[in-house]
Amino acid sequence: METNPVNFASDNSAGVAPQILQSIAAASAGAAAAYGADDWSQRACQRVAEIFETELAAYLVATGTAANALALSALARPWEAIFCHEESHVHDDECGAPEFFAGGAKLVGIPGYAGKITPEALKETLARFPRGLVKSCQPAALTLSQVTEAGTIYGLDEIRALAEIAHEAGLSVHMDGARFANALVALGCTPAEMTWKAGIDALSFGATKNGALACEAVVFFDKRKAEAFPYLRKRGGHTLSKGRLLGAQMTAYLQDGLWLDLAAQANTAARRLFDGLVAMPGVRVAWPCEANEVFLITESQRLERWRAAGAKFHDWPTRAIAPEAAPQLGETLFRLVTSFETTDAEIDALLALARAHR
Amino acid sequence: METNPVNFASDNSAGVAPQILQSIAAASAGAAAAYGADDWSQRACQRVAEIFETELAAYLVATGTAANALALSALARPWEAIFCHEESHVHDDECGAPEFFAGGAKLVGIPGYAGKITPEALKETLARFPRGLVKSCQPAALTLSQVTEAGTIYGLDEIRALAEIAHEAGLSVHMDGARFANALVALGCTPAEMTWKAGIDALSFGATKNGALACEAVVFFDKRKAEAFPYLRKRGGHTLSKGRLLGAQMTAYLQDGLWLDLAAQANTAARRLFDGLVAMPGVRVAWPCEANEVFLITESQRLERWRAAGAKFHDWPTRAIAPEAAPQLGETLFRLVTSFETTDAEIDALLALARAHR
Amino acid sequence: METNPVNFASDNSAGVAPQILQSIAAASAGAAAAYGADDWSQRACQRVAEIFETELAAYLVATGTAANALALSALARPWEAIFCHEESHVHDDECGAPEFFAGGAKLVGIPGYAGKITPEALKETLARFPRGLVKSCQPAALTLSQVTEAGTIYGLDEIRALAEIAHEAGLSVHMDGARFANALVALGCTPAEMTWKAGIDALSFGATKNGALACEAVVFFDKRKAEAFPYLRKRGGHTLSKGRLLGAQMTAYLQDGLWLDLAAQANTAARRLFDGLVAMPGVRVAWPCEANEVFLITESQRLERWRAAGAKFHDWPTRAIAPEAAPQLGETLFRLVTSFETTDAEIDALLALARAHR
Amino acid sequence: METNPVNFASDNSAGVAPQILQSIAAASAGAAAAYGADDWSQRACQRVAEIFETELAAYLVATGTAANALALSALARPWEAIFCHEESHVHDDECGAPEFFAGGAKLVGIPGYAGKITPEALKETLARFPRGLVKSCQPAALTLSQVTEAGTIYGLDEIRALAEIAHEAGLSVHMDGARFANALVALGCTPAEMTWKAGIDALSFGATKNGALACEAVVFFDKRKAEAFPYLRKRGGHTLSKGRLLGAQMTAYLQDGLWLDLAAQANTAARRLFDGLVAMPGVRVAWPCEANEVFLITESQRLERWRAAGAKFHDWPTRAIAPEAAPQLGETLFRLVTSFETTDAEIDALLALARAHR
Repeated sequence: METNPVNFASDNSAGVAPQILQSIAAASAGAAAAYGADDWSQRACQRVAEIFETELAAYLVATGTAANALALSALARPWEAIFCHEESHVHDDECGAPEFFAGGAKLVGIPGYAGKITPEALKETLARFPRGLVKSCQPAALTLSQVTEAGTIYGLDEIRALAEIAHEAGLSVHMDGARFANALVALGCTPAEMTWKAGIDALSFGATKNGALACEAVVFFDKRKAEAFPYLRKRGGHTLSKGRLLGAQMTAYLQDGLWLDLAAQANTAARRLFDGLVAMPGVRVAWPCEANEVFLITESQRLERWRAAGAKFHDWPTRAIAPEAAPQLGETLFRLVTSFETTDAEIDALLALARAHR
Repeated sequence: METNPVNFASDNSAGVAPQILQSIAAASAGAAAAYGADDWSQRACQRVAEIFETELAAYLVATGTAANALALSALARPWEAIFCHEESHVHDDECGAPEFFAGGAKLVGIPGYAGKITPEALKETLARFPRGLVKSCQPAALTLSQVTEAGTIYGLDEIRALAEIAHEAGLSVHMDGARFANALVALGCTPAEMTWKAGIDALSFGATKNGALACEAVVFFDKRKAEAFPYLRKRGGHTLSKGRLLGAQMTAYLQDGLWLDLAAQANTAARRLFDGLVAMPGVRVAWPCEANEVFLITESQRLERWRAAGAKFHDWPTRAIAPEAAPQLGETLFRLVTSFETTDAEIDALLALARAHR
Repeated sequence: METNPVNFASDNSAGVAPQILQSIAAASAGAAAAYGADDWSQRACQRVAEIFETELAAYLVATGTAANALALSALARPWEAIFCHEESHVHDDECGAPEFFAGGAKLVGIPGYAGKITPEALKETLARFPRGLVKSCQPAALTLSQVTEAGTIYGLDEIRALAEIAHEAGLSVHMDGARFANALVALGCTPAEMTWKAGIDALSFGATKNGALACEAVVFFDKRKAEAFPYLRKRGGHTLSKGRLLGAQMTAYLQDGLWLDLAAQANTAARRLFDGLVAMPGVRVAWPCEANEVFLITESQRLERWRAAGAKFHDWPTRAIAPEAAPQLGETLFRLVTSFETTDAEIDALLALARAHR
Repeated sequence: METNPVNFASDNSAGVAPQILQSIAAASAGAAAAYGADDWSQRACQRVAEIFETELAAYLVATGTAANALALSALARPWEAIFCHEESHVHDDECGAPEFFAGGAKLVGIPGYAGKITPEALKETLARFPRGLVKSCQPAALTLSQVTEAGTIYGLDEIRALAEIAHEAGLSVHMDGARFANALVALGCTPAEMTWKAGIDALSFGATKNGALACEAVVFFDKRKAEAFPYLRKRGGHTLSKGRLLGAQMTAYLQDGLWLDLAAQANTAARRLFDGLVAMPGVRVAWPCEANEVFLITESQRLERWRAAGAKFHDWPTRAIAPEAAPQLGETLFRLVTSFETTDAEIDALLALARAHR
């Protein structure tokens, strides 16, 4: 079995929270209605609505790529444009899934430091896609990543400002919340405040990276936009016959604040790791540590030494950093990710390794 | 929780085999490589190759619709045609998933009694799609369901005959094996004999209906046809980040013949149910019971009485039956499905119910 | 240059009416607004509205396949179903264009003698696609060919009956009018009567087969359904930069009843050809001659003699004929098509040839 | 009719060369084989091969968008990436046609001054799309515009350098030659030198902007890459039934060097216009005038005066210009286009207007 005390490559490689695993086991016994009509799935979707304090339409799927691509395909038609950060997961890391599900819709990347789209950049980009100009893909949706790909977090004011611009231009606003809980805990606000109250129309509500096994919810705060979703999900092959697998996970995830506890643990671990590393000579901050990811810059040769000593993490080539802050020749920007499972011992091991191979 | 001793609606509503559930639990602890690079998934794919006694390329996914649609999209290009039985699952029950994944390729339904395509019908249909005729979608793939939608099974000779015609016409041959194990146990042959030795090029190897939670393998016996599959699966949102969920299921499923035992139990239960029902006056056979499904015909009003008494099963409208055998006015063709979990007590309950409400 | 006095293969091989050619020449001189904003195109679309005596949205394209596929893509979403005769042009002769433009929507062929869908067959087929059943492509559109692929014509009552069933089931109704004028002249009704007054929502209004060079109009009688059409046409590559090519053709086509005169000539020629051939021993009627196509049955060897003598026409394999009327062993069903250019001399030549090689 | 002596908005609004119009008329008389099997189309494709001095596969279509989108769909599969200049026509002006035809493939825009991609920028961009990285769309094709969207021309060395990088990375190279003749005349090289000898694999060979009515050829120098093209064109609705419309245009276009003469006229007119305008105070060069387009910068208010006086041209917002050369506050970058029809009188009229409203 793979276990590595110095593995900070991704929260995708973490295990599963025991409560969630127990819920899967409980749900798996005996007969249940198929295709999401089971009690577990129904309860899970009701629970999502309670958490977000509003009427909504929620659908469970097994992967984040499916959640994002399906959500965007419900918001944009094939001849339309979807606006995202130029280094966002939907644009760079899903092998064209959004274009596939949205029938060839165009993803338009917007540059921005620290993984964030600014209001100015959004306006400038929208100006290049005039509504009614037939030769131009028509603007349909904006998608924001919260946590961003740079591990940073949009403030509520920032979300509101972007959503307002988008809505004025006739766009729907989607949030890629693969690390939703980590952002929520960091901001200390309610799920409603970070979403529909700030102008979010649809959400990929992730659980997999935060202790589930394979579960995300696609949430529509405007239920009319979900009208076609059951068909989209089915023809995407994402309607599980034993849908309780998903319902059981989400039910346990939202039970007694488990999801918030897990995210808080991951965030705390990241902060501890960040503080330890930036205290070392020759290591500097790329982007602030706001959730469960740590982005730093140091000499490339130092990173090679760390890797040789057993540390696992990713180099992170990026254009989302100001030239004066960017890695210089011989330097590398790198990422470490913590999870709900990360222990102090693992962090200490990494820090010790780093000190030993400075 | 839904439990019903007289529920024979679908093998999709059955639970999960304990061995498979334990495997999921074991795999979920602690860190593992993401996206199918974990040990469980690697082992599972090796095990599939051993079972089929050949080199092959195997990919795990969570749903049967994904397995079928992805497999077919690897075999047919967007301007090509895929031939299937006119009442097959890919054609009728996947909301257009194959067309979606294959970029608009055309599914061509072929009629045939008892869910089977005959060599004559295949030849006649292929004659309508001349190779090189530009206005005509070009023939690319044949897909056979084993078990068929009528609960029947192609004999090895039948598979070979169809595959030979298909190959001569330049088509690849896919098998939808959502109930692969049930067919295999019924035929008493080896996995290799029922697939690549009979001319099958790609297989949807189902486990979900036979005791897994959410797991199917897409198997390519011609590895060159799998070249693009990792990209197809990824952009379909079907590459699980914690891929061990799938690897753990398939590993346990294939361990110590579990998969064959589960299928044998389901088939035995179906046979017992079938024998009990056809012994009743007014009930006649629609199609022979060859695997884990029972298709019968009786008075529609009788079925209403059974339902009122608590029995759950599906009416089964079909054109795949000879006019002289088809339901007459006032009659209905109906389906009952057993699973690995079906108990003698459940069968007895259904039979008692049927007798009480004859 | 290809000229053949005994060529009855297709109205696609006919030339261009002089008035239309002159109009193209007139429109081609000097500058004009691009992309259909020119005067010729604007006038043409107004003229279409006048001809149909209603407000409508009309768009010009260069091919019939484009007209059909674009129209259907405006009426059906990717997870929906489009119903058509099983031997219709959209299903058999466009290499999957409707599936392509409609993002993978499913074409469902309905059998029917003489190229026609009957109300009963439509109802039976619709019953297999229940609205709201997620696993089933959702019914979206019915498309009727007028003239049919069998050269027959739907009566106004027949159109009304089918449209009524379709509308009740929530479908839009499209007419493939590649030979619209031939049908109109045969029925002796108005364009409005044969379309929107009978329940047609969208029309492919053909001119190419009837004397134009490359021009069809896509007409929406319900303008709301045309909302996205300019984008669909553009991204399909079907918005001509020098759009006056299309506008000039349609303007001339509709000027002073030219289109009706051309169609009347073609129909009259077909009738003369039909009468001459059926008078011959050994030649019998496959389908009645109602427009500009002749479908007959005779000994296959006789047709070989005709071909050897220089006659050009197509064999016509079909399932749209009752078993008792169908070609027997040694017989072939064949098609001859006349056009506005067909002369009495050409017909006489064919008849003489047929008599000489009986 | 629209005529305006001071209209320099686009070469799309120009008329048609008389020789081409006569050829259409000649081809339109009488019967001919359909769907491009006619003599005119066959001759045209042979003529293209002669002009390019090599064996090739050529296909005629009616629009530039169709040519580009179809060509790219033959070079890239749905999960692959197509690299282009970020302001190229395929990316900005075709409403997503390449994404549509290529089944959702991703267009990746590369920035570059004066409409050109540099070798460095290409390498940097390719580095972001590692071959074999499953989450990343796989690199498949590079498309270059010759003339570029900035009216500039790639030198042969530049084409060769880019093609070499692309080929080493396993990409095919496409050239969008909507203004191919204008570039060729400017470079003074042979068609072969500007294409396959420099590494171009496929070409959109434009005629419409240079005196044809609606005609482009898609040319594959590697015939194996054209294998599926007839099907792609057909299901795109781009196979004209009276294909001679296209064959007649291309035949006349390539006859006796007409195409080169037309382009030379347009280029000469642009140079005269450019020289006249840059001689005026307050007008400066945006990009050099290398073909038939003029890109200048001046005070925005001056342009308003010109427009008020009757001049027609386009503002040209762009990022493809160095900050120090870019329009300052109160300035606008604008474009004027000449065509084969542009007369000295029209140029004099524009210059007089500009002087009168300086």
